[in-house]
Amino acid sequence: MTLHLYDLAAADPARRFSPYCWRIRMALAHKELPVETIPWHFTEKAEIAASGQIFVPVLVDKGRWISDSWTIANYLEDAYPNSPSLFGGGAGRSLTHYYSTAADALVTAIFRFIALDILHAIHDKDRAYFRESREKRVGMTLESFVADRDARLPAFRDSLMPLRRTLNAQPFFGGDQPLYADYAMFGPFQWARCISPFVLLAPDDPIRLWRDRLLDRFDGMARKAPAYDS
Amino acid sequence: MTLHLYDLAAADPARRFSPYCWRIRMALAHKELPVETIPWHFTEKAEIAASGQIFVPVLVDKGRWISDSWTIANYLEDAYPNSPSLFGGGAGRSLTHYYSTAADALVTAIFRFIALDILHAIHDKDRAYFRESREKRVGMTLESFVADRDARLPAFRDSLMPLRRTLNAQPFFGGDQPLYADYAMFGPFQWARCISPFVLLAPDDPIRLWRDRLLDRFDGMARKAPAYDS
Repeated sequence: MTLHLYDLAAADPARRFSPYCWRIRMALAHKELPVETIPWHFTEKAEIAASGQIFVPVLVDKGRWISDSWTIANYLEDAYPNSPSLFGGGAGRSLTHYYSTAADALVTAIFRFIALDILHAIHDKDRAYFRESREKRVGMTLESFVADRDARLPAFRDSLMPLRRTLNAQPFFGGDQPLYADYAMFGPFQWARCISPFVLLAPDDPIRLWRDRLLDRFDGMARKAPAYDS
Repeated sequence: MTLHLYDLAAADPARRFSPYCWRIRMALAHKELPVETIPWHFTEKAEIAASGQIFVPVLVDKGRWISDSWTIANYLEDAYPNSPSLFGGGAGRSLTHYYSTAADALVTAIFRFIALDILHAIHDKDRAYFRESREKRVGMTLESFVADRDARLPAFRDSLMPLRRTLNAQPFFGGDQPLYADYAMFGPFQWARCISPFVLLAPDDPIRLWRDRLLDRFDGMARKAPAYDS
């Protein structure tokens, strides 16, 4: 039975860009589960009301509505125990939680570079909501928020040193093969390249090479998605 | 057979404070391995020359000299497979590597608060070496380096949000019980409380409560060590 995933879309409904939805897209592919994604826009809160909250990803499986990417990942692992594991066992599941929270901080950091590009790419009907909610959150206009992004890029890249040092030592956070920890961290980078031409990672950065390995996974699923070569 | 660990000591040889040595002290206790620690001072490079490098921790086991905390942790896991696992399996080992590199970044961040307290606590013979090497690294005097630490404390605490959010959800990074991932992250906090009265963590911070749970482990081994109540 096909699962359904509400997936954040830009003005072009084929351009999907939520860092949290991308985690789940990759997790579903890893679990070899058939999914039909439903393009969803920021202001279409009514469409996911059955989930009891207002954010995507929202997964619908056998009539059950599940939200929050970490909750969804755990649900998939438990509901489909015969599919490849997302966590690599009980200790692996516990150890993966921190990847999820660390990746959330990465979303916050990357937002400072791509916020205005998001505004430009999203559906007309979403723009007022997006600008108002995000400008309230960051305490300034989106234009001011990203204005000095070129100057801030070196410090951002430096802040990624812990990721880089691990990925210099092994192909994936999960080891020789990716696990949910990889997809959690991949989400923010895929978000950026799907919605913004801004080049966050240098071409020879081990983090970029890891990202590219994940783009190749699942017959290039994430690489084939509408995105920038950034 | 008892293992030996060269362990960084302050002027008081009982005061041990390396974030990297503390990882290994905890890992050895977790593996239930008897160890004799050898107090070592920064300038006593000749004593660990057999390890082929100049930093602690250095572990000596059956005539073999092993350095680098991550290398030592992997050695212990492989050499003592019948002792409790530090990683919780193959996926767990891979997933733990990033904790080690993330904890290294935490050492860098915390150094900005405690650098001068370290200078004051170490052995007279180490002071010139420590001041010169660290001031060269940070590009200013240690006095200037820590001068605005009170003002920087809120931002530092904010930066720990990913740790906090995971520890709000589970007792340890390893789950219900600590694993090497916990000891890797514990090292920097134990380093700080062993050498500095500066209070890094608020009393009700979930990170502090987690740290305190680790202080209680192994019959309070880390709690009994000379330290500040910080």
